Amino acid sequence: MSNTAHLEFDTSGSKVAERIRHMRSSPVRDLFSAATRPDIISLSGGMPDVRLLPKEDIDLAMQAAVADVHARSVAYQYGPTDGRPETRKVVTGLLRDIGVRAKPENVVLTSGAQEALDLLAKVFIDPQDIILTEGPTYLGALQAFSAYQPDIHAIPMDDDGMRMDLLEEELKRIGKNNPKLKFLYTIPNFQNPSGVTMAPERRRRLIELSHEYGFLIIEDDPYGRIRFDGGHQIPLKALDDQVVYLGTISKIFAPGLRVGWIVAPRHVLSKVLLAKQGADLCGSSLDQAIVQHYFEDIPWQNTLQKFIVTYTERRNAMLAALKEFFPPEATWTRPQGGLFIWVTLPEYVDTGSMLAEALEAGVTYVPGDSFFPGGCAGKNSMRINFSYESPESITEAIERLANVIESRLELYRVFIEAGALKR
Amino acid sequence: MSNTAHLEFDTSGSKVAERIRHMRSSPVRDLFSAATRPDIISLSGGMPDVRLLPKEDIDLAMQAAVADVHARSVAYQYGPTDGRPETRKVVTGLLRDIGVRAKPENVVLTSGAQEALDLLAKVFIDPQDIILTEGPTYLGALQAFSAYQPDIHAIPMDDDGMRMDLLEEELKRIGKNNPKLKFLYTIPNFQNPSGVTMAPERRRRLIELSHEYGFLIIEDDPYGRIRFDGGHQIPLKALDDQVVYLGTISKIFAPGLRVGWIVAPRHVLSKVLLAKQGADLCGSSLDQAIVQHYFEDIPWQNTLQKFIVTYTERRNAMLAALKEFFPPEATWTRPQGGLFIWVTLPEYVDTGSMLAEALEAGVTYVPGDSFFPGGCAGKNSMRINFSYESPESITEAIERLANVIESRLELYRVFIEAGALKR
Repeated sequence: MSNTAHLEFDTSGSKVAERIRHMRSSPVRDLFSAATRPDIISLSGGMPDVRLLPKEDIDLAMQAAVADVHARSVAYQYGPTDGRPETRKVVTGLLRDIGVRAKPENVVLTSGAQEALDLLAKVFIDPQDIILTEGPTYLGALQAFSAYQPDIHAIPMDDDGMRMDLLEEELKRIGKNNPKLKFLYTIPNFQNPSGVTMAPERRRRLIELSHEYGFLIIEDDPYGRIRFDGGHQIPLKALDDQVVYLGTISKIFAPGLRVGWIVAPRHVLSKVLLAKQGADLCGSSLDQAIVQHYFEDIPWQNTLQKFIVTYTERRNAMLAALKEFFPPEATWTRPQGGLFIWVTLPEYVDTGSMLAEALEAGVTYVPGDSFFPGGCAGKNSMRINFSYESPESITEAIERLANVIESRLELYRVFIEAGALKR
Repeated sequence: MSNTAHLEFDTSGSKVAERIRHMRSSPVRDLFSAATRPDIISLSGGMPDVRLLPKEDIDLAMQAAVADVHARSVAYQYGPTDGRPETRKVVTGLLRDIGVRAKPENVVLTSGAQEALDLLAKVFIDPQDIILTEGPTYLGALQAFSAYQPDIHAIPMDDDGMRMDLLEEELKRIGKNNPKLKFLYTIPNFQNPSGVTMAPERRRRLIELSHEYGFLIIEDDPYGRIRFDGGHQIPLKALDDQVVYLGTISKIFAPGLRVGWIVAPRHVLSKVLLAKQGADLCGSSLDQAIVQHYFEDIPWQNTLQKFIVTYTERRNAMLAALKEFFPPEATWTRPQGGLFIWVTLPEYVDTGSMLAEALEAGVTYVPGDSFFPGGCAGKNSMRINFSYESPESITEAIERLANVIESRLELYRVFIEAGALKR
């Protein structure tokens, strides 16, 4: 029976699970291949510039990870589901720096913070449960959550983060202690995609509301240490130990090693660990050992400072280019840290359909509707990244993008002049 | 608002998803800490003996993975969701060796084969769908699948693997092209936990039945290359390209680097990739780069041979000790490869409750009911592992275990003599 071509398995139809029909592919991931065309300048990624990492630092950490027989017998072997104890201890040190007190037993290591999102969704979400997020929010979170078929409500933001007045209105509709309301997901620092940071008084108000209405807060903080201007903001986790806090090495060290973490009360972690056993048994022991030694043995703060200085220059270049080249109809955020700027165009511009023209012109971005559940909004917005390209390339890319936008606007300006569209 | 101790989040109740209530913890994972007590000899793990890996080989592979600026900019960075292309190409070479022809685009790298099980379950299983497995089967598969709430039917095995007559009976009850029947999961070579290999004629029959009744076959093959005696068996994937094949480096290289793979038609992989984007974005770029160089640059077959020679000695020691020490009421399998032996005791012995006595006596194993969906059978069986301990320790462990069993049997023999229990 070598020829079985007569039966093509009907996976697109009856065999595929209901949840998969709710999932959509990430435009960022899909653009991955397009972005490797050498003439294209990519503003669509979310990649840290790992070229800034000193080779000798990682070499040292790698050597330390496999230095002796005992180290190797651990680094090459299956590890505990919750992660290497020494690395969890390192995480508690990183947390201490930002004002969060945690014990190693309150830390579970995950395969990047992305796995943390999937595991928390798996633990908490039944179909039709209610999840609250910022609108726009991280599209990887939307992907992780939507596999479990929740009803995701996006709460609008302004320059101080999620609007607490609009959150409270939504919560009043949902009702107090509604068993279907599972959690609120927020990225309070230099949010992806908006670049906006949640103001201190809103953080306190959010904690109050979580107690008043009975929901868990998931605080995702991949960018908190990538700060260019302004002072440190107290994490939600430092205000309330019930908060589930997510961190990662991806932006302060390297995303090629998949190490993130969940910091949470044990009654949450025990469920997370159940889910993780089935999901992947354990993370990479080798990656976790290297991460331990990188943060223990190396002056990693120097490299973090290099990331910050470099990204500051690039953000400044992007803001300057936006000011110089973008049309007066466009507005954008001015992030004090992180990797992204959020651009809003007039409502009649569809950034999704415009992407093909941008690719043609040699620049990529992520259309704004990717960051809203079900693509329900953001069609006239886009996320642009400043962490990976040089200031010169960023300036060039923004000029190219401005030309693409300009030619769209020209068309519409004719309609507006004729009174057919509102300004 | 720093003191929030008044609200303990009710995660064990209404907030936790339905699926989590179906999950049980792995006794193997739970024993992880117990097994580190120095006086205990663990037969409960499934760990390859990575102490056999030559340090210089892995050092070379690690150095090659980060040898130059370009290599580092890839190894430290996010990778494609389907995995590093060079590593997927290496996998096609490993597949060629065992008679499976595949292109790199039919390979997706996963975080160990465990993630492959989770992703396939996520893609295919709706609650109450039917999944077929061997009985007993890999408990990590049961954990991965049960998170998606299927109805798992375990098909009994004998010394030639899954009983095709009993499978056919089950399929007749389920009916042809039943949309609820999603897939059959099998480990045809040196199965975990039984050590049994599926006979060639049963492999062909299984393929026929999959077409006749309309279900996908998932072939999990972590142990196929760990063969001590007998000839190579043709994989199901080589008989029928519609089969979804899973492999891993965990037993031929090192499980501390999390690299497994799914080989499948593109229409299956496209759904798997959707699920993987949300689950963890991508695997470890560094691990994948090291794996590439380990299989490209190093005489890895020599080390594989060392694994095989060492495990053969240990299996032989275990079989000899079983023969010498175990009571006549016990039977066990005689695997030609892999890591495990399956022991069956008289029906009145409960290996679950006996585990405490075994721990007391300084030996661990995995109770047999862990390997059946819902613990529906196997209560008088156990899985014992021979890949990690020395022949001397294995002999000692089997003697200890025999004493524990003997003291259980003595009690029951009194009842049997009195006619109160059947022999």
